[in-house]
Amino acid sequence: MSDYICGNISAEGGKLFFGGHDTTHLAEKYGTPLYVYDEQRIRHNCRIYRHAMSEYLPRGSFPLYAGKAACFRALYRIMSEENMGVDVVSSGEIYTAFSAGFDMRNAFFHGNCKTDEDIAYAMECGVGYFVVDNRDELFAVNREAERKNIKQKILLRLTPGVDPHTYSAVNTGCVDSKFGNAIETGQASEITRDALALDFVTLCGFHCHVGSQVFGEDVFERAAEIMLRFIAETETKIGYHAEILNLGGGFGVRYIESDPDIDIDNKIKTLGIHISLCSKKLGIIAPRIILEPGRSIVADAGMTLYTVGSVKKIPGYKNYVAIDGGMTDNPRFALYGSRYTCLEAGMTGREHDMKCDLVGRCCESGDIIAKDIYLSSSVKRGDLIAVFTTGAYNYSMASNYNRLLIPAVVMINGQKDYIAVKRQTYADLAGNDM
Amino acid sequence: MSDYICGNISAEGGKLFFGGHDTTHLAEKYGTPLYVYDEQRIRHNCRIYRHAMSEYLPRGSFPLYAGKAACFRALYRIMSEENMGVDVVSSGEIYTAFSAGFDMRNAFFHGNCKTDEDIAYAMECGVGYFVVDNRDELFAVNREAERKNIKQKILLRLTPGVDPHTYSAVNTGCVDSKFGNAIETGQASEITRDALALDFVTLCGFHCHVGSQVFGEDVFERAAEIMLRFIAETETKIGYHAEILNLGGGFGVRYIESDPDIDIDNKIKTLGIHISLCSKKLGIIAPRIILEPGRSIVADAGMTLYTVGSVKKIPGYKNYVAIDGGMTDNPRFALYGSRYTCLEAGMTGREHDMKCDLVGRCCESGDIIAKDIYLSSSVKRGDLIAVFTTGAYNYSMASNYNRLLIPAVVMINGQKDYIAVKRQTYADLAGNDM
Repeated sequence: MSDYICGNISAEGGKLFFGGHDTTHLAEKYGTPLYVYDEQRIRHNCRIYRHAMSEYLPRGSFPLYAGKAACFRALYRIMSEENMGVDVVSSGEIYTAFSAGFDMRNAFFHGNCKTDEDIAYAMECGVGYFVVDNRDELFAVNREAERKNIKQKILLRLTPGVDPHTYSAVNTGCVDSKFGNAIETGQASEITRDALALDFVTLCGFHCHVGSQVFGEDVFERAAEIMLRFIAETETKIGYHAEILNLGGGFGVRYIESDPDIDIDNKIKTLGIHISLCSKKLGIIAPRIILEPGRSIVADAGMTLYTVGSVKKIPGYKNYVAIDGGMTDNPRFALYGSRYTCLEAGMTGREHDMKCDLVGRCCESGDIIAKDIYLSSSVKRGDLIAVFTTGAYNYSMASNYNRLLIPAVVMINGQKDYIAVKRQTYADLAGNDM
Repeated sequence: MSDYICGNISAEGGKLFFGGHDTTHLAEKYGTPLYVYDEQRIRHNCRIYRHAMSEYLPRGSFPLYAGKAACFRALYRIMSEENMGVDVVSSGEIYTAFSAGFDMRNAFFHGNCKTDEDIAYAMECGVGYFVVDNRDELFAVNREAERKNIKQKILLRLTPGVDPHTYSAVNTGCVDSKFGNAIETGQASEITRDALALDFVTLCGFHCHVGSQVFGEDVFERAAEIMLRFIAETETKIGYHAEILNLGGGFGVRYIESDPDIDIDNKIKTLGIHISLCSKKLGIIAPRIILEPGRSIVADAGMTLYTVGSVKKIPGYKNYVAIDGGMTDNPRFALYGSRYTCLEAGMTGREHDMKCDLVGRCCESGDIIAKDIYLSSSVKRGDLIAVFTTGAYNYSMASNYNRLLIPAVVMINGQKDYIAVKRQTYADLAGNDM
C-alpha cells in the first residue's frame, strides 16, 4: 500500500501491521516507546545491494553495512548471514561487531580522529581495512602495525569535491570537508605517496563519501568519475594501481510520501555502466567497487511506537500531541528538521482532520518528532502512535537527555518477535554514578 | 582573568588551571574526553540565588536546581547541602535524586507528558509538588492520589505569552507553546477551576517558564506581571489565592567573551522590587517566588578536556582541529549553533594565529564543537584542548552515537578531585544487547 510508504506496512481492522505483526500487540507486549525492526526487510535491503553489485559492478565488488545508522549485536549477526561487509567508525562499533561474532576481516574502519588506543584495539580485533582519513592517522597506523609486526591493509579517504546538494550537515564530499584529503589541493596525491613509502601498511585503494540522503541524479557518477581520473593519474605518475574504489554511502530513503522512491538496483546499474565507460576511456582496469549503505538498509525496516500522553488544543494557535518519547529516541527533527510519516496505530481508519505537531516529552520546545502533520482530532491520552522509517539514526543517536530511558529494540521475523536490545532501566541510567 | 570567561579559570606556566587544578594533570590522571566540574563554583552559584532570593523576594521564596542541565547523584548531594530544592522532569531524574538521598519533599515534578507510571512512581518517592502541565495530567494525578489516598500538592503550568526573544527552540513562554495552559485563551482559568474542584490535589499556585538563556532586560518582570495579574483576577473571580508563583528558569550564561555577564543578584533585586510594586497595585499579598536555575548553576562550573587527534589544513579552504569527542558529549552546536570558548590547555601562551573549526570524531559533517575559532597553528595530535562553560546540557545530552563512550565526570573541590560518574565502558555500551 503506497500510502504507507513501505511495502511491509499494512492495515487490518483498524490496526496497523508491520512486517505482518499487529503493532498494538507489540506495544502491549513490550511497552512503549518501542523501536521495532523487521528482520526480513533488512535482509531484503541487503540482498538488493548484494545482487545489483555483483551483477552490474566490476567483479569482486560488494556492499558494507554502515553500522552508524543502527548498531547493536543482532544486526551484525544478520549482516554476517547476508554476507555483508561492515563499515565501523569507532572502537565501540568494533566491540559490538566483534562481540557478536562478526568476521572482522570484512570490516572497514572509518573515522576522522582515531586515537592510538582505537588503532591498537582495531588491529587486535583483526579489522581488515583501515580507511585512513589523514596523515596523522597514517603514521599512527604504520607505527602500531610495526609494533605488532603486521602489514595493515588500508584505503585512503579522499575528497572529490562533489557537492551532493543535500543538507549541509550531511554533506561531506566537498573540498572543505573535515574528512579526507582533497584531490584538488594536491593533498590526495601527497598522502598517496606517503602511504606507498611506509613499510607496515598496504595501500589497497581509495575511499570517498559524498553525503547522506542523496537523491541527485548523477552524484555518484560524478564522484566515481573524479575518483577514477585520480586513480588513472596515480597510475601514470607513480605506477600505483588502486585495486579498490570505495564510493561510500548515501542513497536517499523515502520518509514521507513526497520523497522520491529510489530504485537502488537501477541506480547501481547506471553507476556500473558509467564506471565501465570511464575506466575504458581512462585506459585503466576498473577497480572493485565498494558501497556503504546504512540508512537504505535499516531505515524503512524500522518503526517507533509511542503512547500519547496529552493532547493540547490551543484555539486560534496550534495543536500538540505529546508522546512518551521524543528527541531522546529520535533527535532528527531537532538536528536536521527531518520529516516523518506518523499514524494512529490502533485506529488507522480515523480521518486525519487535525493539523498538529507531534512532540516529545522533554522539557525543551525543540523536542519535536514531526511538525505540521495531520492526525485525528479524536486522538487522546493512551492512544498508540506509529512513526515510520525510524530504523536509521534513531536508536544509534538516542540519548538519556531529561534522564529518559532508551527504548527496547524488538525484532520481528515472520511469525516471531524477539528482543534485540533490552529496555534501559533506571539502574542502568545511574550505573556509573558514584 | 576576564579573558578566561570565568573567575575559576587561570593560567600558570603555560598550563590551564580550573578551580585551582592543573588541567593537564587531570587529563593525565583520568583520560580524555573528560567532563570536569568545580564543586566550589557550583556551591557559589547556588548561594547567589539563595542569598538574593531570601534578601529581595517575598518571605519563603527559594530556588530549585533544574537537574535537566546536568543530572547525576553527586549534584543532588551538593544541592541537599546547599538547601536547594530541585526541579525534576522524569522518573529517571526522580530516581537519581531519590537514590542520592535527596529529600523529595523539596522536589517539583515537571514535564508535558507524564505517564501513569511516572505519576505513581513520583508519589511513591514522596515528590513534594507536581507542576501539572495539562488537563490529561491533572486528572491522572488526581486519580493516582485517590488510589493512594493522599492529597498531592500541585502547581499549574501556565503560558503567559511572553516572547523572550531567544532562540526559538528554547522559547517556551509563548501562547503557542507545547507547555502549559495559555492565559490569553482562557484555558489557564479553566484548568484552575478544574484543579480546585478535585478532591485529591491541593493547588498551591502557578508556574511559568519563558525560555532559556534569556538576556533580555525585562523578560522576567513582564512574565511576573502577567502572572500576578492572573493571580489577582483568580482571587477576585473565584476567591482562590495562589501561595506560590514559580517563574521558572532561564537567566543567560556567558559562553564567549562578547556574551553579557549577568549580575544575578542585581537581576533578582530588580525582580523583587517589581513584584512588590505589582502586588501592591493589584491589591494582593505577594506570593512566595520560586526560580529554577539550571544552566546558571552548573554551566560555568564545567569544562571539557579533549585530546587532539588530527589537524587538517586545506590551503585556500579551511582548517580543522579534530578532537577525541564531539557531538556525542556536546551536541549544542549541532542542535543550536551554540558558541564556546576553547583553549590549548597545555600551551596557554601560544599565539592564536589559526582560524579553524574544532570538530568532533563522529562520521558526520555537522559534528562541530566550535566554528571559526582561533587556535595556534602549531596545535598537533596529542595536544590538550579545553572547552569552557560545558557544565550545562553537555553530560545531560550525551549520546552513544557512533558507539562512542560517555566520558567520565570528575569533580574538583579545593585540593581534592574525585570521580562523580565513571567513564562508560564497552561492556556498558552493549550491556542490553542480546
